[in-house]
Amino acid sequence: MGPVSVARVHIDVMLKDEILDPQGQAIERALPSLGFTGVREVRVGKHIVVDIDDADDLDRRVEAMADRLLANPVIERFSYRVE
Amino acid sequence: MGPVSVARVHIDVMLKDEILDPQGQAIERALPSLGFTGVREVRVGKHIVVDIDDADDLDRRVEAMADRLLANPVIERFSYRVE
Repeated sequence: MGPVSVARVHIDVMLKDEILDPQGQAIERALPSLGFTGVREVRVGKHIVVDIDDADDLDRRVEAMADRLLANPVIERFSYRVE
Repeated sequence: MGPVSVARVHIDVMLKDEILDPQGQAIERALPSLGFTGVREVRVGKHIVVDIDDADDLDRRVEAMADRLLANPVIERFSYRVE
């Protein structure tokens, strides 16, 4: 067996659009007083970077991991990209 | 003047590599007991989605916003992409 190749996976976890995001709203309201205008909406989520052994089943493992541990599927949705 | 075009900007804010990330370490330690093996490192940060009026100075505004409000430049670094 050759050396194991390691993939870097970037996972974004955001509240679903229909769920209120108070943290995003707080930022949205703070921006004008700091001189930033023209901001329509701010939403805040998590960005998770995972270094993981690469293999054929990488997508399956990442999706299971996000679904079971990283995101709460009731109120959050996730997306990811492999670097 | 035509209608204002709105850009969607995705900003990632992560702890600098040399700063300890206890939340990432907690996830890292939880994964094997959930059956996920082969994970080398996990780091957790913020993913911020900003809908903002587009203009020539978009980059300057996004960088100033991230630097002054969204990230703590002492311990965090940010990157962004415009959709």
